[in-house]
Amino acid sequence: MAKKVITFGEIMLRLAPEGYYRFVQANSFGATYGGGEANVAVSLANYGMDAAFVTKLPKHEIGQAAVNELRKYGVDTKDIARGGDRVGIYFLEKGASQRPSKVIYDRAHSAISEASPEDFDWAKIFEGADWFHFTGITPALNDTVAGICLEACKKAKELGLTVSCDLNYRNKLWSKAKAGEVMGELCKYVDVCIANEEDASDVFGIKAANTDVTTGTVNHEGYKDVAKQLADRFGFTKVAITLRESLSANDNNWSAMLYDGTDYYFSKKYKMHIVDRVGGGDSFGGGLIYACLNGYDAQSTIEFAVAASCLKHSIEGDMNMVSVDEVTKLAGGDGSGRVQR
Amino acid sequence: MAKKVITFGEIMLRLAPEGYYRFVQANSFGATYGGGEANVAVSLANYGMDAAFVTKLPKHEIGQAAVNELRKYGVDTKDIARGGDRVGIYFLEKGASQRPSKVIYDRAHSAISEASPEDFDWAKIFEGADWFHFTGITPALNDTVAGICLEACKKAKELGLTVSCDLNYRNKLWSKAKAGEVMGELCKYVDVCIANEEDASDVFGIKAANTDVTTGTVNHEGYKDVAKQLADRFGFTKVAITLRESLSANDNNWSAMLYDGTDYYFSKKYKMHIVDRVGGGDSFGGGLIYACLNGYDAQSTIEFAVAASCLKHSIEGDMNMVSVDEVTKLAGGDGSGRVQR
Amino acid sequence: MAKKVITFGEIMLRLAPEGYYRFVQANSFGATYGGGEANVAVSLANYGMDAAFVTKLPKHEIGQAAVNELRKYGVDTKDIARGGDRVGIYFLEKGASQRPSKVIYDRAHSAISEASPEDFDWAKIFEGADWFHFTGITPALNDTVAGICLEACKKAKELGLTVSCDLNYRNKLWSKAKAGEVMGELCKYVDVCIANEEDASDVFGIKAANTDVTTGTVNHEGYKDVAKQLADRFGFTKVAITLRESLSANDNNWSAMLYDGTDYYFSKKYKMHIVDRVGGGDSFGGGLIYACLNGYDAQSTIEFAVAASCLKHSIEGDMNMVSVDEVTKLAGGDGSGRVQR
Amino acid sequence: MAKKVITFGEIMLRLAPEGYYRFVQANSFGATYGGGEANVAVSLANYGMDAAFVTKLPKHEIGQAAVNELRKYGVDTKDIARGGDRVGIYFLEKGASQRPSKVIYDRAHSAISEASPEDFDWAKIFEGADWFHFTGITPALNDTVAGICLEACKKAKELGLTVSCDLNYRNKLWSKAKAGEVMGELCKYVDVCIANEEDASDVFGIKAANTDVTTGTVNHEGYKDVAKQLADRFGFTKVAITLRESLSANDNNWSAMLYDGTDYYFSKKYKMHIVDRVGGGDSFGGGLIYACLNGYDAQSTIEFAVAASCLKHSIEGDMNMVSVDEVTKLAGGDGSGRVQR
Amino acid sequence: MAKKVITFGEIMLRLAPEGYYRFVQANSFGATYGGGEANVAVSLANYGMDAAFVTKLPKHEIGQAAVNELRKYGVDTKDIARGGDRVGIYFLEKGASQRPSKVIYDRAHSAISEASPEDFDWAKIFEGADWFHFTGITPALNDTVAGICLEACKKAKELGLTVSCDLNYRNKLWSKAKAGEVMGELCKYVDVCIANEEDASDVFGIKAANTDVTTGTVNHEGYKDVAKQLADRFGFTKVAITLRESLSANDNNWSAMLYDGTDYYFSKKYKMHIVDRVGGGDSFGGGLIYACLNGYDAQSTIEFAVAASCLKHSIEGDMNMVSVDEVTKLAGGDGSGRVQR
Amino acid sequence: MAKKVITFGEIMLRLAPEGYYRFVQANSFGATYGGGEANVAVSLANYGMDAAFVTKLPKHEIGQAAVNELRKYGVDTKDIARGGDRVGIYFLEKGASQRPSKVIYDRAHSAISEASPEDFDWAKIFEGADWFHFTGITPALNDTVAGICLEACKKAKELGLTVSCDLNYRNKLWSKAKAGEVMGELCKYVDVCIANEEDASDVFGIKAANTDVTTGTVNHEGYKDVAKQLADRFGFTKVAITLRESLSANDNNWSAMLYDGTDYYFSKKYKMHIVDRVGGGDSFGGGLIYACLNGYDAQSTIEFAVAASCLKHSIEGDMNMVSVDEVTKLAGGDGSGRVQR
Repeated sequence: MAKKVITFGEIMLRLAPEGYYRFVQANSFGATYGGGEANVAVSLANYGMDAAFVTKLPKHEIGQAAVNELRKYGVDTKDIARGGDRVGIYFLEKGASQRPSKVIYDRAHSAISEASPEDFDWAKIFEGADWFHFTGITPALNDTVAGICLEACKKAKELGLTVSCDLNYRNKLWSKAKAGEVMGELCKYVDVCIANEEDASDVFGIKAANTDVTTGTVNHEGYKDVAKQLADRFGFTKVAITLRESLSANDNNWSAMLYDGTDYYFSKKYKMHIVDRVGGGDSFGGGLIYACLNGYDAQSTIEFAVAASCLKHSIEGDMNMVSVDEVTKLAGGDGSGRVQR
Repeated sequence: MAKKVITFGEIMLRLAPEGYYRFVQANSFGATYGGGEANVAVSLANYGMDAAFVTKLPKHEIGQAAVNELRKYGVDTKDIARGGDRVGIYFLEKGASQRPSKVIYDRAHSAISEASPEDFDWAKIFEGADWFHFTGITPALNDTVAGICLEACKKAKELGLTVSCDLNYRNKLWSKAKAGEVMGELCKYVDVCIANEEDASDVFGIKAANTDVTTGTVNHEGYKDVAKQLADRFGFTKVAITLRESLSANDNNWSAMLYDGTDYYFSKKYKMHIVDRVGGGDSFGGGLIYACLNGYDAQSTIEFAVAASCLKHSIEGDMNMVSVDEVTKLAGGDGSGRVQR
Repeated sequence: MAKKVITFGEIMLRLAPEGYYRFVQANSFGATYGGGEANVAVSLANYGMDAAFVTKLPKHEIGQAAVNELRKYGVDTKDIARGGDRVGIYFLEKGASQRPSKVIYDRAHSAISEASPEDFDWAKIFEGADWFHFTGITPALNDTVAGICLEACKKAKELGLTVSCDLNYRNKLWSKAKAGEVMGELCKYVDVCIANEEDASDVFGIKAANTDVTTGTVNHEGYKDVAKQLADRFGFTKVAITLRESLSANDNNWSAMLYDGTDYYFSKKYKMHIVDRVGGGDSFGGGLIYACLNGYDAQSTIEFAVAASCLKHSIEGDMNMVSVDEVTKLAGGDGSGRVQR
Repeated sequence: MAKKVITFGEIMLRLAPEGYYRFVQANSFGATYGGGEANVAVSLANYGMDAAFVTKLPKHEIGQAAVNELRKYGVDTKDIARGGDRVGIYFLEKGASQRPSKVIYDRAHSAISEASPEDFDWAKIFEGADWFHFTGITPALNDTVAGICLEACKKAKELGLTVSCDLNYRNKLWSKAKAGEVMGELCKYVDVCIANEEDASDVFGIKAANTDVTTGTVNHEGYKDVAKQLADRFGFTKVAITLRESLSANDNNWSAMLYDGTDYYFSKKYKMHIVDRVGGGDSFGGGLIYACLNGYDAQSTIEFAVAASCLKHSIEGDMNMVSVDEVTKLAGGDGSGRVQR
Repeated sequence: MAKKVITFGEIMLRLAPEGYYRFVQANSFGATYGGGEANVAVSLANYGMDAAFVTKLPKHEIGQAAVNELRKYGVDTKDIARGGDRVGIYFLEKGASQRPSKVIYDRAHSAISEASPEDFDWAKIFEGADWFHFTGITPALNDTVAGICLEACKKAKELGLTVSCDLNYRNKLWSKAKAGEVMGELCKYVDVCIANEEDASDVFGIKAANTDVTTGTVNHEGYKDVAKQLADRFGFTKVAITLRESLSANDNNWSAMLYDGTDYYFSKKYKMHIVDRVGGGDSFGGGLIYACLNGYDAQSTIEFAVAASCLKHSIEGDMNMVSVDEVTKLAGGDGSGRVQR
Repeated sequence: MAKKVITFGEIMLRLAPEGYYRFVQANSFGATYGGGEANVAVSLANYGMDAAFVTKLPKHEIGQAAVNELRKYGVDTKDIARGGDRVGIYFLEKGASQRPSKVIYDRAHSAISEASPEDFDWAKIFEGADWFHFTGITPALNDTVAGICLEACKKAKELGLTVSCDLNYRNKLWSKAKAGEVMGELCKYVDVCIANEEDASDVFGIKAANTDVTTGTVNHEGYKDVAKQLADRFGFTKVAITLRESLSANDNNWSAMLYDGTDYYFSKKYKMHIVDRVGGGDSFGGGLIYACLNGYDAQSTIEFAVAASCLKHSIEGDMNMVSVDEVTKLAGGDGSGRVQR
């Protein structure tokens, strides 16, 4: 029977001009839905896991459409609270070559950001569950939501779930100081920590030495040091760090490292030609959780997670639409892109 | 030289599923911009008038796109204040046959609704202007905006502009009691009042006898009585009432009446097959102001305004895209729809 | 707690040229999914019922996409057998004015048509269920599927479920003689029979006197007679007959009659301007089952079912996307199509 | 073996905003090809006739695309001269309700309008042919093309082909006086004359008494008189007049009359809900030629031609995409638009 | 006068999600047509050759649309047998970066796969023809079609046509053993053999030493050996082998080798950024046949064929849409992609 | 207060198949507007400059749409003369990989090419202006337009404006000899000369030694020599030369050099992955003029101009849609394309 994972956070309506059009050229927006934890839930459901997403959404049709998108991919939505006025929105303009992608957030006052603790009965939500996942975006919404998140973490630990957190720092939502304070408290309950090459520094002031993300040079020793500091400070059993080298809006290199408290495991590095970069980190989280819950060894775990997120970069939308077979095949070495008839 | 008209209000991003798709079926939204007073400004600019629209919009690209849409059609946007966080949004699902169109508003916290009186220098804005127009939607946003609106009305009267107001009651924005109170104060400065078949009742409790808008029966005597009551109470020099008979979401009859304080002028009635019903009332306002500013007699005025708004119902989007020639030709009798080569 | 309905049949990939393009003009096909019983399940799920759809679908992505479409709207898909080679396809060209819609079936050899009895464990499928629904299309696929259908009917009756059947005769799938024979056997287990103005004649040779469907004249007395004959022959507790008057591909009149073994209840008649006619009968079935399961009286039942299917004609795709509120509002009299803000 | 028809004229690139968008709202144009005589050729090819279209088109890809569109539907294009600079263009804005369709021509300097007599070897082109068709648009291009047309008519008569002409007056191309002069000479070689309700008056000053095309009243006696005058003046063996009643841009009534020198045959009248009105007259011509070449009697001929063109109004683009079966079925009485499965 | 080429095989409806969408994300499919031999025919017609395609297609509109697509590009379709029930379908999901393209076949029971020998009169079909081409896909359909293919080969040789075959092994259609047996018999009649880097091994067990297609290393000596073995075993006068190095789904290197029984000619190698990879091999075949029939020397032949197929990779759809001039220009050295004004 | 720039030339309707479709595959064309000088005006308006574009356009809706596109982006259009028959058109097929982009011009007889000197009152147009810009395309239209251009240059110099010219040689519009003669006269009035790597040679026979544009090798010394020769011959105060290395239709390297009469300043070189190459040179001109008018030093000027045009290559359409901030950020070093949230 499939393991059960609960994720909690915000799902937003994503409005993106078609192709490479700029915002001021757009006469229509592609409408999809996404958000850090929702994306992880969809990844897991696509791997055949029993994945649930918890949030609050308005009762109107735009809220319902967000629910439907999750249901479509098999995510359990029965614990989504319904109420509030709006679905958070983000506008996404896809970058190309030297022109970066651009995001305009219009997420204030969303239903989840105005939720109250009574909207969620964590004991009931966690029944039969094995894993709880959230990202740093959720507590960043405001103190109430941070409180709900903390309550969930405590209950999850109490009930014996593994807890994972993707630090995911967003400077438009809170300051580094505030993030450090709130996340520091939450991380006490976290077992598995996920971060990208900047999060540890932004949130906890832990820096990887000698790395300049804009030039694409990555220093393996520096990352090891960061992972160890994180694990030591919060007692994480696992720390996974993604390593993105941004060559242009179209071309990125992508790899990651997993630290299990003892050893450091580096994945293969993929040279990616990007279709849609949003959700890349979330798909890594989804892959990592899948591998952990299915007993992969450390090297296989990080290879699965990186291959999963590499594939995500070739897929439109926030959500990763790949099967375990597809990830396994790539992780096992066939990145030649030959037609599969 | 063209007469100059200033309009003031909110312009929103309109997000509408393609064709007749329901919200829950939509994978993209057509993105256009519209709002009561902005629609009037575009109508007038398309007639060759010097039309300006005043509002507040964020500096980001979505705000800029709203400005650009207005500029595209020749509306003067130089007095639009820039700042705030969001462009108000409304989602529109187009109805068909027995299924009504549906609007979901997501307009709270828009830049204009959070504007302050300092954002607008009415003396400067009204320089060289002949006419000021607003609708009941604008003061409904909140007390601050209502105050700005009142200030504009006072300054407009002081500078000798004609002031027009479309009552345009929206029950999602304020109560009837509140509307009556605020609009009652504003109407003291209004010369030309525009209303649909329900507004006078909703805002001021003035009812047209023996009319049931859902069954499509219209009582001419009742409307005369409403217009006279409105003019008598507020001293309007003109009262125009639009008469919509809704047969289905596709088929409406459309006509109007103008009261000039002395006589009542009824227009022809058009049997319309609707392409897009939103902005129908605004296009009527635009036609009415054009006719008034260009010295049309009362019967010609109401025929021009109704023909203009009849044509609007055949056009996608909130804004009326017709020329004086096209309106004149329809008002003059050719509604046969024969191809113009 | 919501009542549970099981439906069984085929869901096909529907490929339709955009708008009114003919097949030979099409450069792309809109891709949706539909089928008589699947459409009923979606209708019911949209009303908040616990609706499950049972079929067989290939494991590949086209099969998965059909599953996803059902899940999106909340239909329980856990008892769909997976296997076989293909999803049945039908090509749909939308008609207009005097040009009729055209369907090309490419459904032979679909997974469900090659299913075997072992694919379905009816005792398990029917656990906790209240109602079983199928249409005449399903047994028409072939003898094996007819046998599965018969087994389901027997088990349903054994377990105390109400069984409904929409006769839905398709002359491309079987002869009238064969249909009469197979359906005659199945109808022994049916409680509620649904038919259109031609089915009773095609399947059982029971004719409504004095009715010419192409000219749009309907003879009430004739339909009463047909319903009574059907009920008398098979012991149906309810017989519902839809009455379509086809004026053109765009314009149809739509009403229905319900016979409860004692009295005949005629609904209002709607003059519809059609967006998409496919699935009109299925939405009637969905409405009827909802009303029956929720204790509506006979007149309210037929009004709900007809209003539901009237709304379906304004919606793209096979499936009805309406809420109980929307249907109730139309059944209660507001067909004016005024904008709902 | 299928009869062979040669048509001669211009084929243009048609650029039309999607749906009901106005020109100033368009961000893309649907690109199709059409022209009076090309449309007739496609109609005939779709009926299984051996139809050829003769014109001149540039060698570049836009010219080639026009050739390809004709080949796609089976029209013989081997006698199309290649050369010149441009394909004529017309921009089409589709009307709705009271807003008429609008055409902007950009056809000057097209390859055919700059063709010379040497481009066409009529003796070779007419080998094995039975019928030659042109419209009044072709000689209207300029004197050189009118001369080529005259040469073709003479050669056609010499070789025993039947010659048909659709008067098709276009006031943007020439004056009535000039049209009368040139067409008067060409009509000496014409056997079958096609006209709409205004052409006879515009070109030859022959008027139908008591008819107002904008109000939709048609006077049968007047048309009889016009047909007889035309036949008497030019010796036409057949005169066909189409009778359009334009109620709105969406709704037209459509019928026609055939005069065979002895009797007058009126067709059924169709109430059409229009998808695309352009090419309606050409599809009538195509139907008429088909019926004549296949030995239909006079009443069947006019019914076939009117049913064919009625169906055209339900089809996007200039060209009629219907089969003989479809036309025959409509002419025979089934205009109910019921789905054909 | 252009040389005449006959090709025989299956043409399928290709249904592909827009852009890089995955199957489960698709709401529409682009609808084009293609198949190995049809693609060759279109290539040749675009070069101005007299190319005919022979197959069997249903009489309905989907079958007709396939015919029309071929006619559009000037392919002679008069010997296509009409009948049967379905057009074979393949679903194509375009890959990107590390995600490979994916094909789902739904081609069983197509009209051509159910054709009988009586459907084709090869003596008549080959009248005036110079060349006959087929691929290994056609005999793979089933024994009957393989028999028809054999009959065609025999008749072609008897009438003095050159026969070419692209081995094109498809493991979903038949086993390697079966392929070897059937193709071994057919190859006795073949003059020109085309293969990719895997076909010779799959079909005849002839391997190129030291080559790993997934890593992109190509061993020239190995290919020479394979070509020689093929020529020696079957007496081919020419063997052409395409050499694809798959770096990712977006980036491939592409070159080829021609063996004329004496010498080995290697083409330039192109680094391609791929728009659509399907039909790449067929466009090579088309180029090769063109060059052979037009007297190119061996080096020019292989350069033309490779340049032609390089260009195909930049074109949407199965079919190559390039002119002789375009191919010649690329083969001659200008691959800079500068704008041609 | 923003500096004012006047540009003069032609704006055309650009019709481009979607994505990478070839002309013969296109069923619709994206419709945008562009032209050398109009593109510069839009660039400048997007930088907040007061930019006006002068041309002649027909009064009809296609002409109006061109005006609207300019107004949308804030370009002053009040001095556009209205009249004439047509808007010039160019068809654009986007290239990919080894397949070059292709342009088919259909611009003859456009309104501006048939304009007369009386259409433009240069003294009035230049009121308050600081800079006048034109390209070699404008005088190439014909002698009358060349005369208007000369008149404008003289008046601009007389009024103290800076005059810039982009040589922009188009061999389809005039011969090299004619270009040299006309441009030689105009260049007497030019202060700032812009050229690409071929213009100086084509127009004035001035060659850069040792450069082969198709192979992508650029010789810095050669360009210096060309710039010096140009400045010496015509007395330009600045000469800017763009250096494009075309690797494929998708990949270009892009840099430029500025000569200020004393020193040579080379910009960084960008490796671009191209979205839309058209207007690349114009965006360079826009950047250059902006930098000059805002007091940038020579190195900053050329870096700004090249960064601006580098970004243009990532944007659909002729016109550059970037802000000063975006250009400055890229010029300052961040070309990593990381998402901007």
